[in-house]
Amino acid sequence: MIILGIDPGTATTGYGVIETKGNSFRMVDFGCITTKANTLLEDRLEKINIELEKILKKYSPFEVAVEELFFSSNVKTAMAVGQARGVVLLTCKQNHCVVAEYTPNQVKNAICGYGNADKCQVQNMVKLLLKLDEIPKPDDAADALAIAICHANSRKMNQL
Amino acid sequence: MIILGIDPGTATTGYGVIETKGNSFRMVDFGCITTKANTLLEDRLEKINIELEKILKKYSPFEVAVEELFFSSNVKTAMAVGQARGVVLLTCKQNHCVVAEYTPNQVKNAICGYGNADKCQVQNMVKLLLKLDEIPKPDDAADALAIAICHANSRKMNQL
Repeated sequence: MIILGIDPGTATTGYGVIETKGNSFRMVDFGCITTKANTLLEDRLEKINIELEKILKKYSPFEVAVEELFFSSNVKTAMAVGQARGVVLLTCKQNHCVVAEYTPNQVKNAICGYGNADKCQVQNMVKLLLKLDEIPKPDDAADALAIAICHANSRKMNQL
Repeated sequence: MIILGIDPGTATTGYGVIETKGNSFRMVDFGCITTKANTLLEDRLEKINIELEKILKKYSPFEVAVEELFFSSNVKTAMAVGQARGVVLLTCKQNHCVVAEYTPNQVKNAICGYGNADKCQVQNMVKLLLKLDEIPKPDDAADALAIAICHANSRKMNQL
């Protein structure tokens, strides 16, 4: 089963595609949709919509997992993330994808076993769980893979 | 010239359509796109996208003016407004509309002549400028009409 994880942002939206087979995961693809700061906001949001649609059509994920806002960030960040998040959720809905949402704490808990794990610990576990040679770069792509793994684990837990 | 003003929000997105002729304005339509709190976020955002598209197709506005975030609001509000705002901007872009953005202070300044005007003063000026019998209801629709008037005035100023 193909699962897509997304870490939304107006400047950088990370994505990670994994395949689950029984108890194991396989990395299929990961990367970032980036938009230029000096372009119109509506053009940046349209790029996120177009690029995400390409990813959805290429991999036809069974389900999509999206990171919820990190509520301790500031208002300006929340607005920028919110705009990208709105476009990501709409694009998923328009492409008939089921969406699940996870807070950063839920993701850390699912990957490392505790909600206060730091970025390095999460990234090392992503590398380990997906049997990669290196930590995926950039950070937003690694985060997106972590969200996808979190969703795969949560689905399994719910089925038990 | 038809101008559409939009005050975005996940629960309520206000819209106001005005027609400008020389120095006067005429109210064409106003109202709200509302979504239910107990439904999936992606469904709520899709409803905003679909309803806004209907308004854009019905009135073919020459330009669209959207309210910028009120930066003193809290992070949770910023996120909710941001998501709706992202969908509004994407929908405008997909429908080939030119978008202008105004802060609440810019809107108050354009309508009342000073940036600290209160809600009642703005709504009374909207009623006066559009020669309406009553203040438009609900508040989000009145705000959207104010944004449309603000943009009409700013365009005129820029042309001088």
